[in-house]
Amino acid sequence: MEFADVVRRRRMVRDYDPDRPVAPEVRERLLEHAIRAPSAGFSQGWAFLVLETPEERDRFWAATTDGGTPDGWLTRMRRAPLLIVPMSDKSAYLERYAEPDKGWTDRDESRWPVPYWDVDAGMAALLMLLTAVDESLGACFFGIPPERVAAFRDAFGVPGSHRPVGCVSVGYPGAEDRRSPSLRRGRRGVEEVVHRGRW
Amino acid sequence: MEFADVVRRRRMVRDYDPDRPVAPEVRERLLEHAIRAPSAGFSQGWAFLVLETPEERDRFWAATTDGGTPDGWLTRMRRAPLLIVPMSDKSAYLERYAEPDKGWTDRDESRWPVPYWDVDAGMAALLMLLTAVDESLGACFFGIPPERVAAFRDAFGVPGSHRPVGCVSVGYPGAEDRRSPSLRRGRRGVEEVVHRGRW
Repeated sequence: MEFADVVRRRRMVRDYDPDRPVAPEVRERLLEHAIRAPSAGFSQGWAFLVLETPEERDRFWAATTDGGTPDGWLTRMRRAPLLIVPMSDKSAYLERYAEPDKGWTDRDESRWPVPYWDVDAGMAALLMLLTAVDESLGACFFGIPPERVAAFRDAFGVPGSHRPVGCVSVGYPGAEDRRSPSLRRGRRGVEEVVHRGRW
Repeated sequence: MEFADVVRRRRMVRDYDPDRPVAPEVRERLLEHAIRAPSAGFSQGWAFLVLETPEERDRFWAATTDGGTPDGWLTRMRRAPLLIVPMSDKSAYLERYAEPDKGWTDRDESRWPVPYWDVDAGMAALLMLLTAVDESLGACFFGIPPERVAAFRDAFGVPGSHRPVGCVSVGYPGAEDRRSPSLRRGRRGVEEVVHRGRW
């Protein structure tokens, strides 16, 4: 698909056809594009947890959501046949920038204007969202609550060095997909958010 | 251009043809794509500072770099005819999530697993980097050192609410563009960073 069409068509999809899995070659294209994201100093301090079987996905939802009867959001989201959790590894960035060509041997986080470990993993997530559009799939990026991260790590053996920046759910759009109520806020246009020459 | 080609061709370009400005309609396409980035709760807590005249660009480089003789990197980067500084506004996110449908009225930052204000502005930056490829331009995303942010804000009247997540330089690639030495590290392949089913 043309790049500009992919950008314009991208939106979060929150219901999936449970009977249409994502083909393995499509899943691999999502991952191959994810690792083309830029990263500060080419640190590539990221990891991706891929969950596909019903058991793996059930374990994800059990670890990251409240128990009890699933609400509408969770009922629909659970239908996604593929979950990919991008994770950031801050230590990889601190180590990379302690190398001789960068020289931040104190590994001081205050040298970093923003946490590029999270930003870069977020860029990788965006590349998966865009690739899903290119593949006629639907996808959604959503956060994992901080109070659930320990349970998530326990469920999948994720080391403390790695933090999930969210989860990308992927599948063919379902019949019950509905627009997020947040969209009623309206998009802030270019003239509203762009400052030319000075603020 | 086909989406997959854009993803594969994207790389950081660090020298620009000083005699080829970016056409206004191309600059606007960069910005129109930037605001298509996803944002948590559709908060859209971002802003973009666009710098184009030699005076505006000189002011940027003076505020954000050390004085003295420019090194090779800076000499080449200063040739970029267009600079766009994506900024994040954390308060917009805290306010958005204090609304009734989210209900985090305490505006407590610890509710946020990662700083999505920075992640979302980073996604907007990536969309500009990709759009540059689609437009046969070169672009680079680089950070503004924390100790320079106050001078940057002073130079352009940027309020304290907004933090630059970096700067995107844009232009037609220059003859002296060279690969980043960081690339010698090699790309970490899919099998190295992907974990299937569990860590």
